[in-house]
Amino acid sequence: MKKHIFLLSMMVLVLAGMLAISPAMAQTDPLPSWNDSAPKKAIVAFIKKVTEEGSSDFVPVPERIATFDNDGTLWAEQPMYFQFIFALDRVKALAPTHPEWKDQEPFASLLKGDLKSALAGGEKAMLEIVMVTHAGMTTTEFEQVVKDWLATAKHPKTKRPYTEMVYQPMLELLAYLRANGFKTFIVSGGGIEFMRPWTEKVYGIPPEQVIGSSIKTKFELRDGKPALVRLPELNFIDDKAGKPVGINEHVGRRPVAAFGNSDGDQQMLEWTQAGPGARLMVLVHHDDGIREFAYGAESKIGTFSNALMAAATKNGWTVISMKNDWKRIFP
Amino acid sequence: MKKHIFLLSMMVLVLAGMLAISPAMAQTDPLPSWNDSAPKKAIVAFIKKVTEEGSSDFVPVPERIATFDNDGTLWAEQPMYFQFIFALDRVKALAPTHPEWKDQEPFASLLKGDLKSALAGGEKAMLEIVMVTHAGMTTTEFEQVVKDWLATAKHPKTKRPYTEMVYQPMLELLAYLRANGFKTFIVSGGGIEFMRPWTEKVYGIPPEQVIGSSIKTKFELRDGKPALVRLPELNFIDDKAGKPVGINEHVGRRPVAAFGNSDGDQQMLEWTQAGPGARLMVLVHHDDGIREFAYGAESKIGTFSNALMAAATKNGWTVISMKNDWKRIFP
Repeated sequence: MKKHIFLLSMMVLVLAGMLAISPAMAQTDPLPSWNDSAPKKAIVAFIKKVTEEGSSDFVPVPERIATFDNDGTLWAEQPMYFQFIFALDRVKALAPTHPEWKDQEPFASLLKGDLKSALAGGEKAMLEIVMVTHAGMTTTEFEQVVKDWLATAKHPKTKRPYTEMVYQPMLELLAYLRANGFKTFIVSGGGIEFMRPWTEKVYGIPPEQVIGSSIKTKFELRDGKPALVRLPELNFIDDKAGKPVGINEHVGRRPVAAFGNSDGDQQMLEWTQAGPGARLMVLVHHDDGIREFAYGAESKIGTFSNALMAAATKNGWTVISMKNDWKRIFP
Repeated sequence: MKKHIFLLSMMVLVLAGMLAISPAMAQTDPLPSWNDSAPKKAIVAFIKKVTEEGSSDFVPVPERIATFDNDGTLWAEQPMYFQFIFALDRVKALAPTHPEWKDQEPFASLLKGDLKSALAGGEKAMLEIVMVTHAGMTTTEFEQVVKDWLATAKHPKTKRPYTEMVYQPMLELLAYLRANGFKTFIVSGGGIEFMRPWTEKVYGIPPEQVIGSSIKTKFELRDGKPALVRLPELNFIDDKAGKPVGINEHVGRRPVAAFGNSDGDQQMLEWTQAGPGARLMVLVHHDDGIREFAYGAESKIGTFSNALMAAATKNGWTVISMKNDWKRIFP
């Protein structure tokens, strides 16, 4: 009889253990790279109140949508947007098959290494560089080009692969949100097809949860096989007032939490906050010139204007100081 | 002591039961409204080979994407697209605030009940009707208009709410796919914002997995509050060659299974089939004039041309005969 009791007790313990795995894991700190300062406290308190059954701020799982800017929010964006470095590298790689570029701006200056003269043509020059490097191939071919570039390219300052220039505290935050029933989306001004080949591996965000700027594509038969061909024509700019539009088009639901770092994210945070119930709006501030880069109102890339800081204060948005609130920056 | 054994035994049973729920359920027929004919066999065999570990056709869970047309594939589309009936009902509802419509086509004829004269203006007339009924309000307002209409509108023949005019065998198929790790998407020529308010409740498909045609929206402040306003300007037509484009834009992955019923779905099936590995392409054929509607090559709505049937035969696509392959049509 004793043996039976013992065996039954063991089974209860084993089965109870299997059921109890999640609560047990929840006790470890889900955000170990964050200091215990205000931003971490705000995030943890928000998650608690929207996920606790019976809470007046409870949000059902299907409505737990969190959106993240990418450049400067999930990965670095200095000395310039990584996608633009990709475009410059592509111009060099394609130059042998484009002898005419030797006498044609912005390519001539670019190939001489004179970026300043190349970009003297302003937006038109930028767009030309983007189109020759991003259009004219199938979606499958472009995906491969991006993967090949990421496999070898290195950040000019840190010499690390670009996919390692991601913020460890944000990786933890993404996992923490997902563990609490959130669907995490990227909402970036960057190219949607430039991000999709690697976001699943690096952030755990699948391609269908990536929103970004895009050029038009066209379905056609190439050698009798269906293909999607990338056209040199803008389709959508997913920045500033475009971000709520992109979110609506792709998600069809308003986020309950939104994370950004620059003026391009203000409207996304406003749109998020304008919904009913509890909302979380967060901005990453790049104030750590030693461990990362320090920039803000004066920067052309990732501008964090004084107007944005004023909006954050007025609206009660959480501002993360990378210097003070993060224990570590990169993985 | 006896009491302890009893309590422990009960706990073991309860806990073991909690762990065993899934395997027990998997043994019941997941497609009870399907006859055991070729289409059901093809679907079940496909699911088996792409989900079985070690199978040469195994597809990892994140890549299990299935896309469904809506009109004529998931719900009925006769005597005309339900969204167009919605638009006509809206014209009537809005008429009191538009006295000018009395002398203005296509509205004048429409309000007299003369649909034929109203549509004599062809595509231009159709577009005018769509724009006055679908644009000019915020996305939130439009969502409410759709919900209010669905709550009271009845199908002219069956007198059932439109959301009950869905195909029971397809509801079972959606659930079966999801139980096997698939993400199910709608890829419809219909309006994306017309579908999203009800697809989650009716099909279990959340708004972020609905792809459709759209008009442009604009982010603006209305009375100081952020709003997305629907503009009378086409954004995207998600039909024919537009379907692979829409899938790429929203999913960023090629489907492994695609389901349609008309010429508008041919390119989606071609695009699906052109990927490597096992693929499933299925067309619903409306040949049941008694339980539903019989139409095909001659129909203007949901055209299933002879060319599509020839493509299905040539490419080995599965064609469902609603009459012969489905035990029941509606829930």
